[in-house]
Amino acid sequence: MSSILHGGRLAATRKDVVNFISSVEEDKRIAQATVLVNEAHVIALAKAKAISLGDARRLIAILREIEKYVPFRRGVEDVHVLIEEHVTKRAGRNVGGQLHLGKSRNDQVATAIRMALRHDMLEISNLLILLERELLQLARKHVRSLFPGYTHLQPAQPITFAHYLLAIGDSLLRDNQRVVEVYKRINTSPMGAAALAGTSVNLDRAFVARLLGFEGIIENTLDAVGSRDFVLEALSVCAITALDISRMVQDIIFYSSADVGLIDIPDEFASTSSIMPQKKNPDPLEIVRARCAHVVGNFSSAGMTMHALPSGYNLDFQEITPLLWQSVDTLKSCLRILSQLIPEFKLKKSIADRRDLQFTAATEVANALVKAGKLPFRSAHHAVGEAVTLALEQGKTLRELTPEDWKHVLGTTPNKKTLASITEMLNLSKHVQTYRTRGSPNPKQVEQMIKLRERRMQVLIRQNADIEARVRSSMLKLHGASRNI
Amino acid sequence: MSSILHGGRLAATRKDVVNFISSVEEDKRIAQATVLVNEAHVIALAKAKAISLGDARRLIAILREIEKYVPFRRGVEDVHVLIEEHVTKRAGRNVGGQLHLGKSRNDQVATAIRMALRHDMLEISNLLILLERELLQLARKHVRSLFPGYTHLQPAQPITFAHYLLAIGDSLLRDNQRVVEVYKRINTSPMGAAALAGTSVNLDRAFVARLLGFEGIIENTLDAVGSRDFVLEALSVCAITALDISRMVQDIIFYSSADVGLIDIPDEFASTSSIMPQKKNPDPLEIVRARCAHVVGNFSSAGMTMHALPSGYNLDFQEITPLLWQSVDTLKSCLRILSQLIPEFKLKKSIADRRDLQFTAATEVANALVKAGKLPFRSAHHAVGEAVTLALEQGKTLRELTPEDWKHVLGTTPNKKTLASITEMLNLSKHVQTYRTRGSPNPKQVEQMIKLRERRMQVLIRQNADIEARVRSSMLKLHGASRNI
Amino acid sequence: MSSILHGGRLAATRKDVVNFISSVEEDKRIAQATVLVNEAHVIALAKAKAISLGDARRLIAILREIEKYVPFRRGVEDVHVLIEEHVTKRAGRNVGGQLHLGKSRNDQVATAIRMALRHDMLEISNLLILLERELLQLARKHVRSLFPGYTHLQPAQPITFAHYLLAIGDSLLRDNQRVVEVYKRINTSPMGAAALAGTSVNLDRAFVARLLGFEGIIENTLDAVGSRDFVLEALSVCAITALDISRMVQDIIFYSSADVGLIDIPDEFASTSSIMPQKKNPDPLEIVRARCAHVVGNFSSAGMTMHALPSGYNLDFQEITPLLWQSVDTLKSCLRILSQLIPEFKLKKSIADRRDLQFTAATEVANALVKAGKLPFRSAHHAVGEAVTLALEQGKTLRELTPEDWKHVLGTTPNKKTLASITEMLNLSKHVQTYRTRGSPNPKQVEQMIKLRERRMQVLIRQNADIEARVRSSMLKLHGASRNI
Amino acid sequence: MSSILHGGRLAATRKDVVNFISSVEEDKRIAQATVLVNEAHVIALAKAKAISLGDARRLIAILREIEKYVPFRRGVEDVHVLIEEHVTKRAGRNVGGQLHLGKSRNDQVATAIRMALRHDMLEISNLLILLERELLQLARKHVRSLFPGYTHLQPAQPITFAHYLLAIGDSLLRDNQRVVEVYKRINTSPMGAAALAGTSVNLDRAFVARLLGFEGIIENTLDAVGSRDFVLEALSVCAITALDISRMVQDIIFYSSADVGLIDIPDEFASTSSIMPQKKNPDPLEIVRARCAHVVGNFSSAGMTMHALPSGYNLDFQEITPLLWQSVDTLKSCLRILSQLIPEFKLKKSIADRRDLQFTAATEVANALVKAGKLPFRSAHHAVGEAVTLALEQGKTLRELTPEDWKHVLGTTPNKKTLASITEMLNLSKHVQTYRTRGSPNPKQVEQMIKLRERRMQVLIRQNADIEARVRSSMLKLHGASRNI
Repeated sequence: MSSILHGGRLAATRKDVVNFISSVEEDKRIAQATVLVNEAHVIALAKAKAISLGDARRLIAILREIEKYVPFRRGVEDVHVLIEEHVTKRAGRNVGGQLHLGKSRNDQVATAIRMALRHDMLEISNLLILLERELLQLARKHVRSLFPGYTHLQPAQPITFAHYLLAIGDSLLRDNQRVVEVYKRINTSPMGAAALAGTSVNLDRAFVARLLGFEGIIENTLDAVGSRDFVLEALSVCAITALDISRMVQDIIFYSSADVGLIDIPDEFASTSSIMPQKKNPDPLEIVRARCAHVVGNFSSAGMTMHALPSGYNLDFQEITPLLWQSVDTLKSCLRILSQLIPEFKLKKSIADRRDLQFTAATEVANALVKAGKLPFRSAHHAVGEAVTLALEQGKTLRELTPEDWKHVLGTTPNKKTLASITEMLNLSKHVQTYRTRGSPNPKQVEQMIKLRERRMQVLIRQNADIEARVRSSMLKLHGASRNI
Repeated sequence: MSSILHGGRLAATRKDVVNFISSVEEDKRIAQATVLVNEAHVIALAKAKAISLGDARRLIAILREIEKYVPFRRGVEDVHVLIEEHVTKRAGRNVGGQLHLGKSRNDQVATAIRMALRHDMLEISNLLILLERELLQLARKHVRSLFPGYTHLQPAQPITFAHYLLAIGDSLLRDNQRVVEVYKRINTSPMGAAALAGTSVNLDRAFVARLLGFEGIIENTLDAVGSRDFVLEALSVCAITALDISRMVQDIIFYSSADVGLIDIPDEFASTSSIMPQKKNPDPLEIVRARCAHVVGNFSSAGMTMHALPSGYNLDFQEITPLLWQSVDTLKSCLRILSQLIPEFKLKKSIADRRDLQFTAATEVANALVKAGKLPFRSAHHAVGEAVTLALEQGKTLRELTPEDWKHVLGTTPNKKTLASITEMLNLSKHVQTYRTRGSPNPKQVEQMIKLRERRMQVLIRQNADIEARVRSSMLKLHGASRNI
Repeated sequence: MSSILHGGRLAATRKDVVNFISSVEEDKRIAQATVLVNEAHVIALAKAKAISLGDARRLIAILREIEKYVPFRRGVEDVHVLIEEHVTKRAGRNVGGQLHLGKSRNDQVATAIRMALRHDMLEISNLLILLERELLQLARKHVRSLFPGYTHLQPAQPITFAHYLLAIGDSLLRDNQRVVEVYKRINTSPMGAAALAGTSVNLDRAFVARLLGFEGIIENTLDAVGSRDFVLEALSVCAITALDISRMVQDIIFYSSADVGLIDIPDEFASTSSIMPQKKNPDPLEIVRARCAHVVGNFSSAGMTMHALPSGYNLDFQEITPLLWQSVDTLKSCLRILSQLIPEFKLKKSIADRRDLQFTAATEVANALVKAGKLPFRSAHHAVGEAVTLALEQGKTLRELTPEDWKHVLGTTPNKKTLASITEMLNLSKHVQTYRTRGSPNPKQVEQMIKLRERRMQVLIRQNADIEARVRSSMLKLHGASRNI
Repeated sequence: MSSILHGGRLAATRKDVVNFISSVEEDKRIAQATVLVNEAHVIALAKAKAISLGDARRLIAILREIEKYVPFRRGVEDVHVLIEEHVTKRAGRNVGGQLHLGKSRNDQVATAIRMALRHDMLEISNLLILLERELLQLARKHVRSLFPGYTHLQPAQPITFAHYLLAIGDSLLRDNQRVVEVYKRINTSPMGAAALAGTSVNLDRAFVARLLGFEGIIENTLDAVGSRDFVLEALSVCAITALDISRMVQDIIFYSSADVGLIDIPDEFASTSSIMPQKKNPDPLEIVRARCAHVVGNFSSAGMTMHALPSGYNLDFQEITPLLWQSVDTLKSCLRILSQLIPEFKLKKSIADRRDLQFTAATEVANALVKAGKLPFRSAHHAVGEAVTLALEQGKTLRELTPEDWKHVLGTTPNKKTLASITEMLNLSKHVQTYRTRGSPNPKQVEQMIKLRERRMQVLIRQNADIEARVRSSMLKLHGASRNI
């Protein structure tokens, strides 16, 4: 236990116990925010006339010195007592001893975490937007590049590479929405809640919140220090984003495997084997996949930590914060590496050249039988199913089936229009142009979607810039208030 | 495999395999929604002139018959083929065979889940509001009822029972915010995405969405059928709510334990032991606590199922839906039992009568030393810590300490004002009135908070009613369109 | 609350609360075991002269009637009070009222779960052995069938299909070891521990344990009723097995995808699409994959439920049992479907025919350069790496590289022996025969491994039969003791 | 990518990508083991005459130099290439280039992890034994110290503190059993499996295994490098142990809370609040509780990483190792702090003095009514339940109930023997001596249990010492072989 808390209620202290419970290493992440919180608090104390202006000025002066660099040392519980100790050493016990009046580590740490986290969430949002923009840029080049759409890991229907990329991007946009929504719940201030019951010191909570760039306060003081749902929500938002990303990298690992050969990963993003000279392994993608699992697991760990914890502050709270930073950092590094990798993708060869992928035309061949052949869809579906079986047995593609073959599976001679329709559908480039529903791989649809999303990106970028500006301006306000006290 | 899908591409079928993969039991939950989706789809097919008006009318007529009761049977894969089979049996292969034109189980199931889920999420929102209202009503009665605020499971500071209840309620309000936000992401329509690539049938996706009460469509067709982040998000929102609830019930279990004895649980919510006649066990609360853990676990299970799943539809999707319903139902039943239990709480005895709880005044005693005694806070904190140790050693309460004792710990004779301040703070009823920060247990603050939240509840109730009304009116629209086709 | 527990300590009861906490539906699984436990307990009570022989006979007679079929009804807490109620109704309050003397639901339920679970774990063990035998039988046919070994989802080195199957099988054997080890920790009796403190009734705990087929007792009575690590361990053993299985099915889904085409799944184990006629989807494998995730998730849910639960019995325990049965049942059904599927696998085409798979020879080509060409391995590795790049650039296989090409990458003209060695290694059938380390795909090694494992299976089958016989014989002992009382 | 793997198959390299995938920081933990593996491998290469004796001696000499301290640097993938690079730089490309002949990072890393892990698991076993011994020693002092046994967090029956401590200890003994069992599955060698298919180099796998202290080899080479169930099992064993520990600390937090006041935690293991001077918070226990949740979560994260991963090595494997070390280290530090804390526990006051705890006698009072009053148990249970209600209503303890009161609840005047029995049972010290079942809190039973477990500890300590000796002697063998090559 730090010397400043020592010797009142509790007599003894043990170094091994202090080291066991200390969060000082992890607290580096919130060190600067903690100093700022202390500054705002001192200003509020002075405003409340709870301390003298002179004392306030002295405290502020010392705090501003360590804003950029808090002098860390081991053997102390946390950054909060570390700062108070430092200030007390510099300002003396009479002045430094006032720093903690009307506040507690409970409200201070919750506030500092929120300040650090809002910054991280904004960065995640920016990285999601960056990644989406890379996807859009690549999609632009591949609006007409045929690509097999898969379900159940089996080729399903012809789509375009652009359409695939947009699907990925749209899931990222929802991830970004969630980031933005949790941001507003993060960005409220617990300061003034003290240990749990507020304080008899007349602190203006809303004023402190403004100085620290918050949009408002968490009103109920017990709730303010005793809740961590904002951490759980941030973790869950990271987890869902990580799951979306894990699916994208799984796709790429599959598409770039030698057996599938749709996409080429650049050498710089692959590794060879220490023993097998021919290998080109998608190492960074596997790392992304694995780490995304940890991001999900962190929610589970934090959830278990919080489950059935009594209300009010418990030191268990301290232990979910490292999970938070780990999830946030993992997600950021994964998003960064992916936004580097995406522009480097090369499509290996056109789907149109692959005999086996012609079978993906089957659905629209069935539709052609409905339209041109007046078959009910289920009969058309059945007939084309038989045609596929026939072709596979004979080692043919659908295009190589004869009119006789079609007669065999249809039970009747197909008319000319039907045969022409079938042939048209088997031209996969034409095929994708027949899709008519909105959001489909039809190049016209895709072009429209790209345009829409590019405009959307402009809006999102501006929104984030506004948020950043607001935080920055509050910092200026805080520093102004510090100077003018 | 159902007979309608049988015999085209795949020859054989095995009963044990069909039973193994069948979702038919779980699909009961989405049966009605699936029928409605089929109706809307038929209307859209007719509108697109893809099927004749006569066929459309026949299909609609049969579908409307089973809207209330889908005739389930085992040995079939899912509700989708079950309905198509039923319709085909009734309408004949020529008409029934058109039902699946331009759609897939992939878009249909995603749409039906969203329809069932939006209903459930709204119900959860209503139950959260109901519970909050019970908390508010109880709080009204206890604005001045002293209660120990805990941190680290140790009595910390005097609060009021109302303040405690509001803290719980405020966490539920954030849970409700999350429910409302995921609702809007749930409430978009995948229909028209078909298997993944849309279709050459000219379906008006926005029109179908409106008929089914959706606010819009999920545009990219691959994304529409291949994403389940809405399920994961709903699961995470349930999980975070469950964690909040688990903490509340843990509190009550503790408060009502014989050793603590703050709250009395009514007999109807307790059980005795089969062997120990004196026992009064908080069984329902333990069940809530345990089931809340499962709700969190379900997110983990679903996350693991989704992790690194290839894009597009995979049958693994089917397996996360039961987790969703289980989480939703568990949460609903827990919220219901709690809203029954909360109004029955009896506060067992006033905190003011408990000798040991007078120590919770220590913080404000220290503040009194700051104000009246001009001590720096840290010195006051230290002195009061020593006073507590002294009192404990002598088996006294703080009130029983003599001026001599205070002199001993302060190192100097306390002035009258200081002693008077200390005495005032040790009167816990007066104590809570000295809290000045917003959101504190000061009865004035609490009354204001109650008022604000009651007004807020009115708004939320109205919002939910509006949402329900919108869904209901779209159903009328659908039925109108069905009739007028 | 059931009427027999009603009206002493607690006055009122509520139907909704009873239904909320009731485990009666889930208890069906342990109904028979619970009756047997009651019988053994009555015999022990009579032996201790705590009840009269006449009462004991009457109780036993009624219990034996419901051994095969416990008359369930709703609205009661659990099977324990249900049975006592039934017995009391039949035997009258004076006799029936003795049934619960010296026991508690706490020891009874823990005992019954262990009895049901040991049966399930043995079945899982038998199913693991069955599956391993199917793998061995298939492996026998494919000792020389070339197959690509993968790392990082990229073809790595030539192995045989048998070698792959044995690798899977060996992981199952370790899973089986774990099942056997947890079995012995499950198979100890809590009976006689009563609520937590044992009892003043002179019950012979070891005697009861023997009657119920246990290998011994859990000695400390608080530990006996208050611990559930046997459930957690069983869940973790299921989880690890499920993870092994999930990897196997992932392999098969990949191997049988149209792009990879190594293995053919029989039609009966596949489904087609409702819309895409050409599709052949590995539905049952996807279901196995997804459900395996839930088995892992169940450990997480149970762990969260147990985390930080106070010692002694808590009703939360009740809620982890359904997770246990779900994991056990899921695992059993997955193992069953896989043991049906495995014998039906068809290898699609020999690896030897696939141009691209010749690159998997690269490692041993490098080794050949070491042996015949006296190169240090790292240089050989480098040279072959360049050779692969050269071949890929020119669209060649390694076999099609000329001596000039080799000279180019080696920097020196290769000698004849070297070229011959290279050529030999590029014949993949010969290639696999050059592996010399134990456990390698060399057919000789594989044959030996198969023989060893077949013998091992005989031992394991006998062991399980012995365990089953022991349990059966204890049941005979119990029934004998029931008759002879 | 490291320069030694560079330039053959893959042209380019990027620093950010290498840093992203690098495990070099985490590999420090396995650095020494990796050097030893290299030494054993070189000896095996020499034995197989695959490299010259001279080269082998040179390689060994360099490896022995870095055995104690591997010269780490950043910007390299992992410790494996780091060591090869170092050796190559020192020995030149001709000699150093032979180091990797016949091995792969795949078998090497799996072997090194197993070596480091077996050491850790043994340490955990030793710490579990140490903690159990502290529990036994404390129990010795408290064989007759009355203590309330709890169920549902409600006082249930009188036990002794020793009985409680033994219950905790017995769960730790099962944890230790699991540690010992996973140890034997960890302690088998993958070396010689190379990348997955073994090698044409004639390596003696059993010989290498012996040099490295393994009990045998994992035979199938694909299984040897492609499986990580040993990691999952170690994680699950840690998780179950952590859950047991979390329950113990939850107990202590509750027992030492001011409201309950059964146990006193020494000041050195508590912290005060920065604001509330009276607080004595059980900080280290909360940290243990929280970190135990993370240990459980790590299994979940690792399980998700492994779920549905293709067979063979994937780089995802790399990412579960840090979870393993984290779980192992957390568990070790928690066990260590607890074995420091346990001997310091002070029982605060005897249960016998607490009025409210007399109700815990109720079960045996009911039994007394059965024995002395000839009531059927259920009627006795009912009557005592009413007696408790009566007492509570009148603010009495059970001892203060009059014969009239008993008549009232029994419906008949109790005889003298009955009243005497009741009185006897209400003397809690006598009460615990009436327990007759084995393993109960009866001091005689407890003394016997302590003796048995103390003897058991001797056996376990010897077993672990033997295991350590075996590993140490193999290291001597390895160094001997290194010298004598």
